[in-house]
Amino acid sequence: MKTVFSAGQLAHDPKQEISDGMLKPAVEIPSRAEMVREAVLARRLGELLEPDDFGMEPLARVHDADYLAFLESFWTRWTTAGRSGEAFPFVWPVRGLNIDPVPDHIDGLLGRYSFDAGTPLGEHTFAAARASANSALTGARLVAGGERAAFALCRPPGHHAAADYYGGYCFLNNAAIAAQWLRDAGAERVAVLDVDYHHGNGTQSIFYERSDVMFLSIHADPREEYPYFLGHAAETGAGKGEGFTANYPLELGADWDVWSQALAASLDRIAAFRADTLVVSLGLDAYEKDPISRFRLVHEDFTRMGAALAAAGLPTLFVMEGGYAVDALGTNCVNVLEGFEAV
Amino acid sequence: MKTVFSAGQLAHDPKQEISDGMLKPAVEIPSRAEMVREAVLARRLGELLEPDDFGMEPLARVHDADYLAFLESFWTRWTTAGRSGEAFPFVWPVRGLNIDPVPDHIDGLLGRYSFDAGTPLGEHTFAAARASANSALTGARLVAGGERAAFALCRPPGHHAAADYYGGYCFLNNAAIAAQWLRDAGAERVAVLDVDYHHGNGTQSIFYERSDVMFLSIHADPREEYPYFLGHAAETGAGKGEGFTANYPLELGADWDVWSQALAASLDRIAAFRADTLVVSLGLDAYEKDPISRFRLVHEDFTRMGAALAAAGLPTLFVMEGGYAVDALGTNCVNVLEGFEAV
Repeated sequence: MKTVFSAGQLAHDPKQEISDGMLKPAVEIPSRAEMVREAVLARRLGELLEPDDFGMEPLARVHDADYLAFLESFWTRWTTAGRSGEAFPFVWPVRGLNIDPVPDHIDGLLGRYSFDAGTPLGEHTFAAARASANSALTGARLVAGGERAAFALCRPPGHHAAADYYGGYCFLNNAAIAAQWLRDAGAERVAVLDVDYHHGNGTQSIFYERSDVMFLSIHADPREEYPYFLGHAAETGAGKGEGFTANYPLELGADWDVWSQALAASLDRIAAFRADTLVVSLGLDAYEKDPISRFRLVHEDFTRMGAALAAAGLPTLFVMEGGYAVDALGTNCVNVLEGFEAV
Repeated sequence: MKTVFSAGQLAHDPKQEISDGMLKPAVEIPSRAEMVREAVLARRLGELLEPDDFGMEPLARVHDADYLAFLESFWTRWTTAGRSGEAFPFVWPVRGLNIDPVPDHIDGLLGRYSFDAGTPLGEHTFAAARASANSALTGARLVAGGERAAFALCRPPGHHAAADYYGGYCFLNNAAIAAQWLRDAGAERVAVLDVDYHHGNGTQSIFYERSDVMFLSIHADPREEYPYFLGHAAETGAGKGEGFTANYPLELGADWDVWSQALAASLDRIAAFRADTLVVSLGLDAYEKDPISRFRLVHEDFTRMGAALAAAGLPTLFVMEGGYAVDALGTNCVNVLEGFEAV
């Protein structure tokens, strides 16, 4: 399986994040990608490719133009306003508050285009996020071109980013951008299966009213886990998209026995949908030793996960999402990919 | 003029707040109230009264029951979860995210019931906020009972708090609670005039669809200032409340010439409304030396403000809101109240 990755993705290099009302060392750091890259090479998964630059158009198929313009202009605005260092928003347009008119002030803009306080935005964030999205797009093109599977080593991750806001360490929704590109390239039905420990709220919201892209997610119950405000079983899509979203929230502490049942149910749904391409939002944080997560998958379970995904028999694009047990990330990630290839 | 204040309001004693992505010393601190109390005594404004306890019912006329239950149970939940110190939320249910079901996790609850990251919530916050609301209610009862005016020395402030969320250093909306109590006590039309530098988004949202309580606000343009997402001139009420909200957003740097024109326009609106009682949300942060604000009112302008408010000829309840130039707070506050009494 080919892996797509660009060193440009490492340029987003946050130092700290706001968590529990304190500034703590950032966990979504460049070494996450480096560890996975090393494992891909060490275990000879396959060729390692640089992504091509797909430009802004495929991003604009998923994200609002004003949101992309904000991300692109952010650093200039930030420094012009006399600010420096990593930016964190501190006020948000929740219910009863308006997103229009868009504020002129940089602190208003930060809240307008985000949904959490824990995602540092810096000078090189957008460039790195674009490089990450280009890895997803290059992987999508490989799959559309006939490869059985490809691995987009995306980082920064994407699945918490919605059409017009960032958060959860995510800026551009790599999986959604890839899924939309696959649709535009001719796929009639694309399934996005999100196996990250955290619900992929951004991806769900992007496709919630569509019947051509099915979104499925296996994750910690949002009553107990971030992002808290999306990912319940009762959310099944809306309008034309009714029935094309499926959520499998699991209790904290879930192990492979529990987790794999949700996976089997997801794959049944994908088969019934008759997807012609599968995009896997590949978070590795269901791992038992992940520092910010509480599922109990072990190394071998990731191999099993890959095998089960392969059994779907679909052209498959793996898009990396979260996972913060840096030392184990490479092992667990390549376990999935090798497990897939072994079938 | 009588002043209502309880030492219980000082129990909310935050140490730090999140601002610009950093932990900084809190600015909404007990000494704000103490300085005003001292000025009230030194300048012999009138009797200083302890508030009575009005219980939960008048709070529940304005705030949602589940929000009040959250505030009441917060510290127990927080400490039961093994947490300590001041709480700050970090993720919010913006557009596309759901407020129901309400999360079980304390971090989800914090975001569910707030709209910013800069408002510390601690062990004694709710008790202090209740004491502050009781001061507003006791002041309202004085006015309903025939006093020409009363001063509720409220702190924590209230005008950013909505029916079911806190933020902007506000937890219970003292002015809204007092206005509703006045309505329930027989006033037919209550006008709430908010002269704080920051838009009173909470008060506006609470009364936005009502024609019996008019809300008017003179404040820094939200395109350039907190709370950024409410307070534009185009917001004039909705449904039955259409025409009963009036916003006067002013450019940064506004001085008395500019400010007093908005005040005159506000008072014209209040006269046309034929309000029978006036509630003034008395922020003092239009002051030229306020550390977080950028209007240019000087000490004497606050005296002029009081005189202009008196000219409305209405029974008037003053409810203190923001103002962070601690040394000058007492002077500016009592200037307004003396200016009122001199007419």
